[in-house]
Amino acid sequence: MPPSKQYTELCSQLREIGNLKSVSSLLSWDQETYMPAKGAASRAEQYAMIAGLMHERATSRKLGDLINACEDDKNLTSDPATAANLREIRRDFDKETKLPTELVEELAKHGSLSQDIWKHAREKSDFKMFQPALEKMMELQRRKAECLGVPKGGELYDALLDEYEPGATSKQIEATFTPLRKELTALVAAVAAKTGGVKGEKKVKKVKIDSSCLDVKVEPALQHAFGLKVLEHMGFDLEAGRLDTTTHPFCSGFGPGDTRLTTRYRGERFTDALYGTMHEGGHGLYEQGLPKLAPIGKDGKPGESLYGQPLSEAISLGIHESQSRMWENMVGRSKHFWKWALPIMQKNWGKKFKKFGADDLYAATNTVTPSLIRVEADEGTYNMHVMVRFELERGIMSGDIKVKDLPGLWNAKYKEYLGVDVPDDRRGCLQDVHWSFGLLGYFPTYTLGNLYAAQFWETINAAMPDLQKQIAKGKMLELREWLRVNIHQHGRRYRAGELCEKVTGKPLAADALLRHLRAKAEAVYGI
Amino acid sequence: MPPSKQYTELCSQLREIGNLKSVSSLLSWDQETYMPAKGAASRAEQYAMIAGLMHERATSRKLGDLINACEDDKNLTSDPATAANLREIRRDFDKETKLPTELVEELAKHGSLSQDIWKHAREKSDFKMFQPALEKMMELQRRKAECLGVPKGGELYDALLDEYEPGATSKQIEATFTPLRKELTALVAAVAAKTGGVKGEKKVKKVKIDSSCLDVKVEPALQHAFGLKVLEHMGFDLEAGRLDTTTHPFCSGFGPGDTRLTTRYRGERFTDALYGTMHEGGHGLYEQGLPKLAPIGKDGKPGESLYGQPLSEAISLGIHESQSRMWENMVGRSKHFWKWALPIMQKNWGKKFKKFGADDLYAATNTVTPSLIRVEADEGTYNMHVMVRFELERGIMSGDIKVKDLPGLWNAKYKEYLGVDVPDDRRGCLQDVHWSFGLLGYFPTYTLGNLYAAQFWETINAAMPDLQKQIAKGKMLELREWLRVNIHQHGRRYRAGELCEKVTGKPLAADALLRHLRAKAEAVYGI
Repeated sequence: MPPSKQYTELCSQLREIGNLKSVSSLLSWDQETYMPAKGAASRAEQYAMIAGLMHERATSRKLGDLINACEDDKNLTSDPATAANLREIRRDFDKETKLPTELVEELAKHGSLSQDIWKHAREKSDFKMFQPALEKMMELQRRKAECLGVPKGGELYDALLDEYEPGATSKQIEATFTPLRKELTALVAAVAAKTGGVKGEKKVKKVKIDSSCLDVKVEPALQHAFGLKVLEHMGFDLEAGRLDTTTHPFCSGFGPGDTRLTTRYRGERFTDALYGTMHEGGHGLYEQGLPKLAPIGKDGKPGESLYGQPLSEAISLGIHESQSRMWENMVGRSKHFWKWALPIMQKNWGKKFKKFGADDLYAATNTVTPSLIRVEADEGTYNMHVMVRFELERGIMSGDIKVKDLPGLWNAKYKEYLGVDVPDDRRGCLQDVHWSFGLLGYFPTYTLGNLYAAQFWETINAAMPDLQKQIAKGKMLELREWLRVNIHQHGRRYRAGELCEKVTGKPLAADALLRHLRAKAEAVYGI
Repeated sequence: MPPSKQYTELCSQLREIGNLKSVSSLLSWDQETYMPAKGAASRAEQYAMIAGLMHERATSRKLGDLINACEDDKNLTSDPATAANLREIRRDFDKETKLPTELVEELAKHGSLSQDIWKHAREKSDFKMFQPALEKMMELQRRKAECLGVPKGGELYDALLDEYEPGATSKQIEATFTPLRKELTALVAAVAAKTGGVKGEKKVKKVKIDSSCLDVKVEPALQHAFGLKVLEHMGFDLEAGRLDTTTHPFCSGFGPGDTRLTTRYRGERFTDALYGTMHEGGHGLYEQGLPKLAPIGKDGKPGESLYGQPLSEAISLGIHESQSRMWENMVGRSKHFWKWALPIMQKNWGKKFKKFGADDLYAATNTVTPSLIRVEADEGTYNMHVMVRFELERGIMSGDIKVKDLPGLWNAKYKEYLGVDVPDDRRGCLQDVHWSFGLLGYFPTYTLGNLYAAQFWETINAAMPDLQKQIAKGKMLELREWLRVNIHQHGRRYRAGELCEKVTGKPLAADALLRHLRAKAEAVYGI
């Protein structure tokens, strides 16, 4: 039975909104990559205008009427995929209609300006320069959360969380994070004891990891070429995407056929850019795997494209992050990955790598060392960085924390959880771009991503017993295919938790991640 | 007296349209520079959508009512600047309202797709591959011209001309071009006689120009660095602009503070990229000189920005081109420019340039040699390339010429006017991007630009007697200032011909350009 006229019209409206989203993504990608400095004010205006247009369409009465009509159409709701599509369309519409246009425009405009201020403040390591813009942003976020509405028994912050991880609440996250932190603290302490990092401990035989293989300087251009090669092996389609350089790496999926990644190069630590690239590459594969392009029908002709519809969109940031972290950590930090990658590096990057083996790179990229910068943190301590941000932003939303106190609190928590002293705000609370353009409630999804990734990974390895051998040969297309079939192609058909159970047979839990990290600690430190 | 509420509202509406224009320019700049190949179809959709939104606003009843109200307000019309602004706002509105939204969207969508096809056809030198897309484009142009309406006593093509050069007609242009071509033909023949290019001539002492200085290979990265240096000396603000690489060089003025140039590098002929950069740099200086940013008032605070209003926009393509050709030809191909530039090249580009002097470069960059590619043509023959295109597109619009016959006619005209054989369509009728996205009536403005440039140049040199000495020192800021004050800052306040008379004291004529070219021919060939 052909879809109703209303459903066709609804999808066409969503496609227009999708096109505006793509335009908005380009404005923002360009601002981060190539826009000249003096274009910032004008860009803010353009961005606000497009945001306003999107909001206008996403909340239009016409759209509401179409949704109502489709929800009443049993031919539509009896089809599970279409029903899921409608469920998510309804969710988006209800969320959007709660936000007044004026607030949406102000958020976009202030976000663009504030991001520009953040960039300069970060360069100068000057929190005071950024503080007024951030205060205004937090105030706007509070208004946004109030408009969205607090879930029953929840708190203001939950309204923001739900934007990025549908259904997640602060309490649930706290309940998962707290025990995870305890176990990880134990693991970090055990490593510290092995490596002599803890004072007053009894003398035991210390383990010392030789990380000098990571200190070899590699020209950015050579790193870039290698990054592209890795992306190619991961199955990222470079004719439908790019890799550029920005301060903070990100992935931006525009429209069908256009997914862009960025990374950053430092001469003295090539793994920075490599893992940035693999991480964003994982996001990029998810974007390229979503059914945005028209599916090819039995007659060999393309059918209706799903672009703009929830069925062609990512479930949640947690699931998105599970894809990036899997490629970065489960693949990129595995011994088998290095068995493939090291010979290429030795061939293309010169003699300095000749003396190292895959074991050296495996150990060096899996050390557990408390540090300052989240995006450079190791797998063992990474989630601590996330917890600091989660607690601070939750506190700001509840009113318990003032923006002006952020640097002090940030530094205190880093001392408490990670034992490190933050020397300046550039390496402290100014390091991330997120807050500058209003991403509140976003950080916890990073750790949710790690949890999902680990649980998926156990399932994948059970399903593909020779996966590690494939990786050792640089063959990763079968893995990409598995992810495409089991995760990417579904779009938003299932909620995150539902997909997790469908794929792994179990609800999300911390044990897979802990097993994964303990196995590495055992291999590297003999714990 | 403060501007009326309606005028303020009118300007605010125009500013929104301006923002959409900026977004549209970014979509198109990105498509040419960084967009991955598979993004083309989706980009076409985005582009069409934004074009539709622009058209919707530019033709809205609300806008029409505001214009009517302002035209009736004597407080506004008694101010010459505001009156000029309203005159041009009316012109734009009337033009836009003549085009149905559906046609505008189709033009944008087909233009984007067709440009993509052209790119591949050009690579493969395959006109047949491009022909259907071009035929459709010409049909759309015919519909566009019909909607715009033919001026009294004019022809269909005039309606398109007027888009780019307000008020220009085919007959006027023909009347200027025909004698110009005769004089230039005589000049080219005289050069040919001097250099032995004409068969059967009596033996005279032949002049041979040594152009080997242009054959020195220079790495694109070094050329790029030099291009940026030249732009800096020209006074192009690189914090409010960029320089990138594309197949066909262009300049795109987005919004206030964002003007982007592109050029293309070939290892074996550095002047290609250099003159591409100076040419687009001239356009860029015009864009940067337009009063898009808010003027600073007597109180030191910025007033209302003129962005979006005609007073902040370029008069015509002819005037725009006069700026680019002036920097490219009058400055960049002068002996004094080489006196400054050559020592820098000798310092940065190595030994191979040591044996050359400024005279060598002056002669080599001012040879008169019939050739195939318009953008690489010398000053003496350049206008012939334009005339070929003018005649062909005029013929297509009148129906005298069929698209399928373009390659044959193109090649025949090149043989007739320039005496060259076109070996393939890549170097023939597929060389320019213009027709692919519907720029019909655009080419003649290149020669109008040369005519304006030469006439302005005589006036400038009379006003700044030490200009040549300044150029020899790389000091070009006073020249930029003169252009800013006398041309750029006026925006569309005056029509092109009016500005020409105001600045030079005379209506546009061919004599200044002919004097300029004859002087060079005398210096180089002793004619």
